[in-house]
Formats: sequence, C-alpha cells, structure tokens
Amino acid sequence: MTYCVGMLLDEGLVFLSDSRTNAGVDQINTFRKMTVFERPGARVLVLLSSGNLAITQSLVSMLQEAIAATDARPSLMNAPNLFEAARHVGDTLREVHRRDAEALQAFNIEFNATFILGGQIAGEAPRLFSIYAAGNFIEATPETPYFQIGESKYGKPIIDRVLRPTTPLADAAKCALISMDSTIRSNLSVGPPLDLLTIHAGALKVAQRQSIDATNPYFQMIRNSWGQALRQAFDELPNPEL
Amino acid sequence: MTYCVGMLLDEGLVFLSDSRTNAGVDQINTFRKMTVFERPGARVLVLLSSGNLAITQSLVSMLQEAIAATDARPSLMNAPNLFEAARHVGDTLREVHRRDAEALQAFNIEFNATFILGGQIAGEAPRLFSIYAAGNFIEATPETPYFQIGESKYGKPIIDRVLRPTTPLADAAKCALISMDSTIRSNLSVGPPLDLLTIHAGALKVAQRQSIDATNPYFQMIRNSWGQALRQAFDELPNPEL
Repeated sequence: MTYCVGMLLDEGLVFLSDSRTNAGVDQINTFRKMTVFERPGARVLVLLSSGNLAITQSLVSMLQEAIAATDARPSLMNAPNLFEAARHVGDTLREVHRRDAEALQAFNIEFNATFILGGQIAGEAPRLFSIYAAGNFIEATPETPYFQIGESKYGKPIIDRVLRPTTPLADAAKCALISMDSTIRSNLSVGPPLDLLTIHAGALKVAQRQSIDATNPYFQMIRNSWGQALRQAFDELPNPEL
Repeated sequence: MTYCVGMLLDEGLVFLSDSRTNAGVDQINTFRKMTVFERPGARVLVLLSSGNLAITQSLVSMLQEAIAATDARPSLMNAPNLFEAARHVGDTLREVHRRDAEALQAFNIEFNATFILGGQIAGEAPRLFSIYAAGNFIEATPETPYFQIGESKYGKPIIDRVLRPTTPLADAAKCALISMDSTIRSNLSVGPPLDLLTIHAGALKVAQRQSIDATNPYFQMIRNSWGQALRQAFDELPNPEL
C-alpha cells in the first residue's frame, strides 16, 4: 500500500509520500513514490505514485525517456501548461496499459496505478491533478484543494477539518504529517521514510525537499504530541449523561 | 454502508450503530442495526449488523424464531455462555447462507454480512465477539477491546488513541460518538439516527439505550466542539521549519 497527499494552497503546494511497498506481508521494500521534474524559473512538477510498482516505475521511466528524447515529442518539460502535462501523464499511462495490461490479466493482476501531479508552469498559477489508472484525471479547486492516493481514509478526517486554500504552507505541511501519522499507525503497509516537498507559488522551483525517517525530531514530536493533544481535547469535551 | 462499534471495558460495554442503508445513492433508507436480546438479571446480548440488509434481517428473524420456538432448540436465550451464543449466531448465519447464497450469486450479489455480538450471561464476565460472513468469529481481549463493522477506517484513529479496557463507560461512549462523527463527515452512506447502548458489568441488563438524531444536543455539541478542539490542538503544535 501507499499513502500520498498533495495540497493546493494560495501560498503554494505541499506534497507528502511514504515509501513502503509490499507484495504480501513478507516482501516489504522501500521505494520512493515522489518524482520531481524541475527547470528552476520555468517549471516545477511533482508526481506522486500509488499502485503496482512495475506500472508506476514504467510510467516514470517513460516520462523521463520522453524528456531525454531529441525529437519534438511531447514531454513534461515542453507541455505548455499543467493540463497538458496531466494529459501527457495520462497518455503515457495508457501506453503502459497497452503494453502490459493483457499480460497482467493473464496472471489475474489488476492494472492498478493512480497518481497526483502538481506544480507550476510559467504563465499560469499552481495547479494540482489526480490521475486515474485509465489515464483520465480531475483537477483540484478551492472547494477541494487536496488529493490523496493509496490508503486515504485514516488520514482524511484531519485534512477535511483543517485544510482550506488560505491555510499557510507550514500549517498544511503539519496537517499532511499528522494525516500520515494517523495512517501509519493504522496501516502496516504505509511507512517511513517520508518525502515532504513544498513549492511557493510563483517561485517555479522546489522550496524544500526533506526526507523524514523515523528518527526525524519534528516527526517524532508529531507522533508523540498529536496523540497527547488529541487525548487532551478528548478529555476536555463533556461526557454524555449515561 | 454502515458503521457500528462495540467496546468491551472493565466497567461494561458500549454499542453504537448508525441506521443508514443504501442500494445506490438514490435508494437510501433508515433501518436500525442494533438488536437487543434481554432477560434482566439473567442475560443481556446486543447484536450489531452490517452488510446486505436482506441477509442481516433474515438472521435476526431466525434468531428470534429460535427464541420463540417451544422445542429445546439452541437460541440466544438458552446458550450457556457468550461463546456458545456467538456460535449460534454463526450457525444461523450459515443457514441463511445455505438458503440464499446460490440465488444471490446468480445475480452477482456477494454474501456480505458481518456482526458484532456482545453482552453478559450470568456466571461469566462481559464478552464481545466479531462474527464474519462465514459464521466464524473472534473475541475481544484487553489488547484489542473493541470491534468495528462497516465503514471502519475514518473512525479508527480516535479509538486507537483513546480506548483502553480501563476507560470509563461515559468516556468510551464519547469516544464512540466522536468516531461516528468522523465517519459520518467522510461517508455519505453512514448517517443518523444513531443507537447508543450501554451495559454495566454485572448488571445483566441494558443500562441505557438512546436514539440520537441530528437534533440531539449532545451529539450536536460533539459535532461542533470536536472540530474546534481538533483545530485548537492542531494550532498548538509547532509548525515544521520550511
């Protein structure tokens, strides 16, 4: 499993991903699920991946091949805007599907892969997309300024209660980490190290990318303090009359 | 969908269920998912149901038929202990399966039904069981003193952080209601009125059963105050350095 979240805010973008992959409980590995495509000052795009690792790695390799190609083929580095970049990811995913889906089906393996793509391309505002396995996609709006992929339910309530487009970037990053902590506590197949990345609107480059492992003091503080804070909030609410 | 939770505490038991059923988003109805079997002073059993409503209603009717029967057949009212009561529910569910599963399969309908059974029978301590569609079941222990059925993920983190066997009954009921509130906010197919029932250990009867609708002042307080309390706890945690 996987848990990734991308947030679109007035101040910019926040991306957070875990790095645990598993094929059964006895085959657990660490693979990063965040890929950055950046030409500072011109564009910055972040792709978060969830699903079958062979599919998601194929997609990323094909996106990189397209960028490295010397012909004029579409790529994330020449897409005129983020909508076209999301289309390019969708089209490339459909190529992976054409190549692999039938063979996977013969082994009863579902073509399972979903993505979050966000960032900014010079000339437009930051944008955020959620891309489905069929290559179709939806875009975040002020009413729904975030997307999750993977094991999304445990970490959704805190985001729904806290996140607004006006939420400052640092608060949004804290919210993403609390959401991740709730998910890690409830689902063994989601785990550190985490990748946390922020982008300031208009900067057209990565503001900060951190790798957060289990010894990271800030994440340890979240792990310890959030439970205590919840507990205290819980204790302060009156009990029902029984 | 459904959300039900049962909690086994040193002080007794707490049960909470929603009442929304749906077959698609345009066929939404209210059906209670809590059934009480009680002979005050001798035994009190509570059954919470989730899954296909035709299956869960059949099961409850058959359990009631067995109680009403004048022969000596096994029933929830003559089971010598709660383990045997859980077996009886499992056996009865297997009867429903024998009768209906094949016909359902012809319509590609899964035999989908899970239950929580808890309570106390004179002579033993309160016990709590989670019963699967196959009629097999597991029992709560001090390490895992609660069970959920239905849409369990949104409301799990708060229970994991708060609930211990030593949690007082009123605190546990508050915890269950907060867990329900988080679930209702995130899943349209879970909704009020709610049934909240408590049993004191040793009393061998229902302590209190409340029907909680959207206008219930305590649940409204939970709905409003828990969001604010979470928000305040969130604001009090330091932000990451970005």
